[in-house]
Amino acid sequence: MVKVVECIPNISEGRRLDVVEEILAEVRQVAGVTLLDYSSNADHNRTVISMIGEPEKVLEAAWRLISKAAEKIDLDQHQGEHPRMGATDVVPFVPVRGMTMEECVDLAKTLGERVGRELLIPVYLYEKAASRPERRNLAEVRRGQYEGLKESIATSERTPDYGPSELGKAGAIAIGARPPLVAFNVNLGTTNLEIGKAIAKGIRGSSGGFVNIKALGIDLSEQGLVQISMNMVDTQGTPLYRALEFIKTEAAHFGVPIVGSEIVGLVPLDAMMDVATYYLGLHDFSSEQILEKRVFGF
Amino acid sequence: MVKVVECIPNISEGRRLDVVEEILAEVRQVAGVTLLDYSSNADHNRTVISMIGEPEKVLEAAWRLISKAAEKIDLDQHQGEHPRMGATDVVPFVPVRGMTMEECVDLAKTLGERVGRELLIPVYLYEKAASRPERRNLAEVRRGQYEGLKESIATSERTPDYGPSELGKAGAIAIGARPPLVAFNVNLGTTNLEIGKAIAKGIRGSSGGFVNIKALGIDLSEQGLVQISMNMVDTQGTPLYRALEFIKTEAAHFGVPIVGSEIVGLVPLDAMMDVATYYLGLHDFSSEQILEKRVFGF
Repeated sequence: MVKVVECIPNISEGRRLDVVEEILAEVRQVAGVTLLDYSSNADHNRTVISMIGEPEKVLEAAWRLISKAAEKIDLDQHQGEHPRMGATDVVPFVPVRGMTMEECVDLAKTLGERVGRELLIPVYLYEKAASRPERRNLAEVRRGQYEGLKESIATSERTPDYGPSELGKAGAIAIGARPPLVAFNVNLGTTNLEIGKAIAKGIRGSSGGFVNIKALGIDLSEQGLVQISMNMVDTQGTPLYRALEFIKTEAAHFGVPIVGSEIVGLVPLDAMMDVATYYLGLHDFSSEQILEKRVFGF
Repeated sequence: MVKVVECIPNISEGRRLDVVEEILAEVRQVAGVTLLDYSSNADHNRTVISMIGEPEKVLEAAWRLISKAAEKIDLDQHQGEHPRMGATDVVPFVPVRGMTMEECVDLAKTLGERVGRELLIPVYLYEKAASRPERRNLAEVRRGQYEGLKESIATSERTPDYGPSELGKAGAIAIGARPPLVAFNVNLGTTNLEIGKAIAKGIRGSSGGFVNIKALGIDLSEQGLVQISMNMVDTQGTPLYRALEFIKTEAAHFGVPIVGSEIVGLVPLDAMMDVATYYLGLHDFSSEQILEKRVFGF
């Protein structure tokens, strides 16, 4: 079985679209890598890129992208709403097929080492690739952003995993490995935002809920709704149905119904299969029983 | 997108395994056709074969299989518990990818015409390919089996769709098209078989329930259970979750809990995705959002 990895570089350019295209061209030149998606945001002045392919190919594409971004983007000139510390800001690797998380961590380290050595850009390993517990959290790695890191990078606390302890105009990069992230939103039949905020507070890890869930209560009063907007960062550890059942119980406590849900963007097949087998009460189901899997071997 | 069809010929030989192997060899010789599964039953004296591939390839494999079975199996010598009327008894085509039911009906007709013309074996089109309403039902097509059909084939009621109105030793074949069939069993936490029988009677089409469900109440008292054993013959028209919710409601009426379920054999991906989207309350989900689908394009 061919191994497949996804890589989602975020670059600090969302306004000069010709520059974005020039950087994307580097990815397109690598045979065997598919550019799944990219999305530029002018307010954030940032572009999120998703590409996929065999590990060595994706590694090469990520390397070329980082090199070109470092050449074209000057952090001293960069302004935008989204926190950032580098021309290429974050580079997560996500296992898609036939890959372990460990192999994705190895990819992150291989890339980081080369970036530090050849481009002299400081690299911080984060999430599953983190070398220190506090670096698992991207917000902590990026604390103070480019400007703040410039002041503090020489301290032992901020020593990069690869590359020099000083910042050039290309800034620094967080390179890491993580499970696929699923954007899962559940709508409540109420316009009372306080209820949404209370449920979001109860479900998210940061305030005592599930470790793999980030959540906000969002006002959709124009539609007569409140939304629990979630990022599920590990649907194997914390499945979609568990989030839904939690919200269902809490909402019932407030006498509020659930009126639908949505998944924004992509979702791994296994995350959906887990939902189906849970609600059907299938105790011995194997994904080998899926007809298409037997035929196409994905 | 490459079109893929499944074909599940049933042949009237489940004891002489060397003959079964000789017939399977015909399928194996056709490049591009995958023999997914086969299973011989000595009591039934019958073998069920599942193969898959592009339509023209599968058509060729089915043709070769039918020719060889006609050569090797003599219905005058055949005995077994399972009803049958031909050496190759039934040949359903099932759409798997990029195929409509209409295209499967066309395959059935193409194969049937050739079998009738070249092998002089009477062919009856059945299920979605049926030329008369009463022939949709395989049991009706096979009424009287080989021996009974020999007597009645000359009547206008039994005139075959292709081939002569007389039976040789290879008998007759039912060729048709149908959706994928899913074997779905739900276990009830009771040993009272009467409850299982009552629920099975309520859910199956033949006694007033859902048109696409066949069901029996089965005694599993050794495990302290009763099972509703179902064949779901069209999970697009009648989804798995609808069967489960019906049983849940009926079982609650008897004060009996559902203690699990099982899917025996293969299930189409869409049937499982329908379950996941139903219980999550996803109103706008597209299968294009499945990561693996984007990557492998199945």
